[in-house]
Amino acid sequence: MTNGAFVLPRPVGVFRFSAVGGALEGEGPLGNCFDEIEPDDRFGQDTWEQAEGELQHRVAQSVLRKLPPHASSPTLILAGDLENQCTASNFGLLPLQLPFFGLYGACSTMIEGLTLGGLLLQSGILPSVLAVTSSHFCAAEREYRMPLCYGSARAPTSQHTATAAGAMILTAEPHTPALVGGCIGTVTDFGVKDSTNMGAAMAPAACRTLVTYLQARGKSPDDYDRIVTGDLGAVGSALFLELCRREGLFLDDRHRDCGLLLYDRDKQPVYAGGSGCGCMASVLCGHFLPELQAHRLHRILVIGTGALLSAISSQQGRTVPGIAHLAELSDHIDQTKEGQV
Amino acid sequence: MTNGAFVLPRPVGVFRFSAVGGALEGEGPLGNCFDEIEPDDRFGQDTWEQAEGELQHRVAQSVLRKLPPHASSPTLILAGDLENQCTASNFGLLPLQLPFFGLYGACSTMIEGLTLGGLLLQSGILPSVLAVTSSHFCAAEREYRMPLCYGSARAPTSQHTATAAGAMILTAEPHTPALVGGCIGTVTDFGVKDSTNMGAAMAPAACRTLVTYLQARGKSPDDYDRIVTGDLGAVGSALFLELCRREGLFLDDRHRDCGLLLYDRDKQPVYAGGSGCGCMASVLCGHFLPELQAHRLHRILVIGTGALLSAISSQQGRTVPGIAHLAELSDHIDQTKEGQV
Repeated sequence: MTNGAFVLPRPVGVFRFSAVGGALEGEGPLGNCFDEIEPDDRFGQDTWEQAEGELQHRVAQSVLRKLPPHASSPTLILAGDLENQCTASNFGLLPLQLPFFGLYGACSTMIEGLTLGGLLLQSGILPSVLAVTSSHFCAAEREYRMPLCYGSARAPTSQHTATAAGAMILTAEPHTPALVGGCIGTVTDFGVKDSTNMGAAMAPAACRTLVTYLQARGKSPDDYDRIVTGDLGAVGSALFLELCRREGLFLDDRHRDCGLLLYDRDKQPVYAGGSGCGCMASVLCGHFLPELQAHRLHRILVIGTGALLSAISSQQGRTVPGIAHLAELSDHIDQTKEGQV
Repeated sequence: MTNGAFVLPRPVGVFRFSAVGGALEGEGPLGNCFDEIEPDDRFGQDTWEQAEGELQHRVAQSVLRKLPPHASSPTLILAGDLENQCTASNFGLLPLQLPFFGLYGACSTMIEGLTLGGLLLQSGILPSVLAVTSSHFCAAEREYRMPLCYGSARAPTSQHTATAAGAMILTAEPHTPALVGGCIGTVTDFGVKDSTNMGAAMAPAACRTLVTYLQARGKSPDDYDRIVTGDLGAVGSALFLELCRREGLFLDDRHRDCGLLLYDRDKQPVYAGGSGCGCMASVLCGHFLPELQAHRLHRILVIGTGALLSAISSQQGRTVPGIAHLAELSDHIDQTKEGQV
């Protein structure tokens, strides 16, 4: 491993995946990609926080139902979310009664779970991992900004936290789509203090992780069909592409941002685009993984970005550091080794 | 891996470790065990949250200084804390500029980092991991209960969040003390709703994980010099021992609780004992690991317990689920395999 970049000696199968979303997500351009759309934004629960827990439970149940008959349950859950102390995961996945490691990676959590799971499955000690994450617009607004009933105005640079969740079952046995490598991000602080512009805060981390990985692998953007960022939105994506150009990386039409794919910004009130752990998680599980499975895409990089702020750190005037974890996914498993990192 | 229990094919070295604490911790029975005691509870910072970040930075610097000259930096940081969105770790460890995976395990975080690091190091992909965690009394009070300046009365069952931190450098190369096995906990909810009695909320998880591990390994408490719990305090420890007795496990004088070791409850205002991620982290790094290193202890189990609540979940009247991760530590490395789990 060099500066966080690694190639897996044994590629890991992304064996099953599911996405669940809320009403607004169901009305968006990817509405048909979800396994389940729940029109009730409370998911039948009393509070927004419990609603997010139920959302996470639903996506886990959805992916577990896709396992073949008599397949074993996953050995370990890797999950986290944006709620204080990650209560959506803690409460939501409690009914599964499986060994559980909690993660905190803000909106990078899906890729943290994917890459961490991929590394753990190299150990030979466990055969499968369930990686889950979620976000809920109403829970996140109350926690990071204001309760919705206050009717606060939003900045044009702000992003809409997706009410969505994604779940993957990773297996040590080879399957496609496969995780073949990745890059663990380093916390990156460019001094952005505007907590209503998280795309700007996360773009430098995304660029840094991409440059680190491509250098370590000796690859260029041309080697990939898509380079997907988590949820930089319109502002962050433009900054990301500019930072990449300065590094000599011209992503041209290869770049896609989950925050821009999930909604139709012309028709839906999402300002600079989508965000939240569930944004990339659901777009990956609902769109990109199926595209790889159908061999319409062959090799992609997905970069999950997280803004490492809290309401308290913002109120105290601190910067918004970013982090970005990267995963390389392939629609086939190379028998020839691609070189170590 | 069976129900989260595992034995490491290649035991992992706990190569270096450090503990840093605040004034109250320095005045306690383990005061001499800390690498550093900081009398200023703000650690020279403006806010409690920044103070905890600085505390975590200090303990990381302390353990890194113990590396031999020319040793490589750790390949990966595994860190988390109790602050909303884990900002103590995100900001505090930012200056290290190393690949970073954020964890959330409440007060079980040190053992989550230790066991997760041990599993990751089996992959052969990375040579070393830095596992860090911390807690700060004043930051935790503001976040989970009330700002200190309100002068709220405390329940006798409540525990005092330690202002303390611990850090370990784990290596794939064999060293002693060694991590030889462990057990990843499952979220356990006995329906406790009293957020001022977290020992009671965590005790069932601790008992469950211990029983799971001993059964999977075919071991009994007699096989260990110590069975150490994280921070159950006086109330939780009594419940833990009672639950163990009902399972036929008589821990007798083998049991120690870090929350009871860190302070002198007769002289220090800590109510039922210590708690917080930094409690077990500092007692482990400042006391138990040195005891193993000096061969005064030979084989111990350490059970990190976490109460998976947030201020919001408590205000909404929800239960306090618990989780407990277990690590088996040894002062020697067995050449003979001890059997798979």
